[in-house]
Amino acid sequence: MQLDPWYITGLVEGEGCFSVSFNLRQKLKIGIETRPSFSISLGKRDLVLVKLIRNYFRCGGIRYSRADRTYKYEVRSVVDLVKKIVVHFERYPLCGAKKEDFERFAQICKMVHANLHLSRKYLPKIIELAYEMNPSGKRKYTKEKLLRVLGEVKV
Amino acid sequence: MQLDPWYITGLVEGEGCFSVSFNLRQKLKIGIETRPSFSISLGKRDLVLVKLIRNYFRCGGIRYSRADRTYKYEVRSVVDLVKKIVVHFERYPLCGAKKEDFERFAQICKMVHANLHLSRKYLPKIIELAYEMNPSGKRKYTKEKLLRVLGEVKV
Repeated sequence: MQLDPWYITGLVEGEGCFSVSFNLRQKLKIGIETRPSFSISLGKRDLVLVKLIRNYFRCGGIRYSRADRTYKYEVRSVVDLVKKIVVHFERYPLCGAKKEDFERFAQICKMVHANLHLSRKYLPKIIELAYEMNPSGKRKYTKEKLLRVLGEVKV
Repeated sequence: MQLDPWYITGLVEGEGCFSVSFNLRQKLKIGIETRPSFSISLGKRDLVLVKLIRNYFRCGGIRYSRADRTYKYEVRSVVDLVKKIVVHFERYPLCGAKKEDFERFAQICKMVHANLHLSRKYLPKIIELAYEMNPSGKRKYTKEKLLRVLGEVKV
């Protein structure tokens, strides 16, 4: 069984998540790691559907979250994000409020793919975009904290 | 802007709800009212999308739930359920676990449309089907209570 591309977009409008997280990493010259990811979480009754989604995108992995009792399909590879995930949603666009999150996400993925997240000039722009996404989500660091770290770093 | 039919199905796989509730009504000969409904709940950022969904189905209403901070699109008319909602999901079927809920729902809507919910012979079957749906949902009455009421009623 094959899922229709528009079905995927509809499902993601409700259950998908585009996110970009940051970690402090002293080993990196720039001091901050940028991690974009795309995920879809579905209830435990829906493992078959989660597998169909992975088959559709031909990338990413599946893991079970005990805490939420959900199966999560997740893509973290920047190449896959740019060449498979972003391409899908450019061709079959979201129609609701999540569209705005996606547009920022796509911009960030393309910048990371071009290695701009390692540049002191462009990383602040990536951080700004990321913090405009998913306004209700939780964040490990405030935006100000990240920009301050960046201010201290010599590249 | 028009939504793709498969987009609708994908969105409903995540955010839609097929449900059948029952109320005790002494004024009815059979004593029990059967109320099927279809709904989609979306966050308050998504009012525009909810309106597009109503335009797609050409039936139903929209209301805001303060408690959940969501907009809910809802169809309760049995004729609309049978002729518009059920028809859509027969043509563009759900792919996940919700498909099973839908199949019971469709069966119930067709029985109600044929007035079988007013028959002492068929209402127990409708109740059985309804209580197999949305196993995690809350119920006003237990199945046993409804069947007991039915046992007491003379039709």
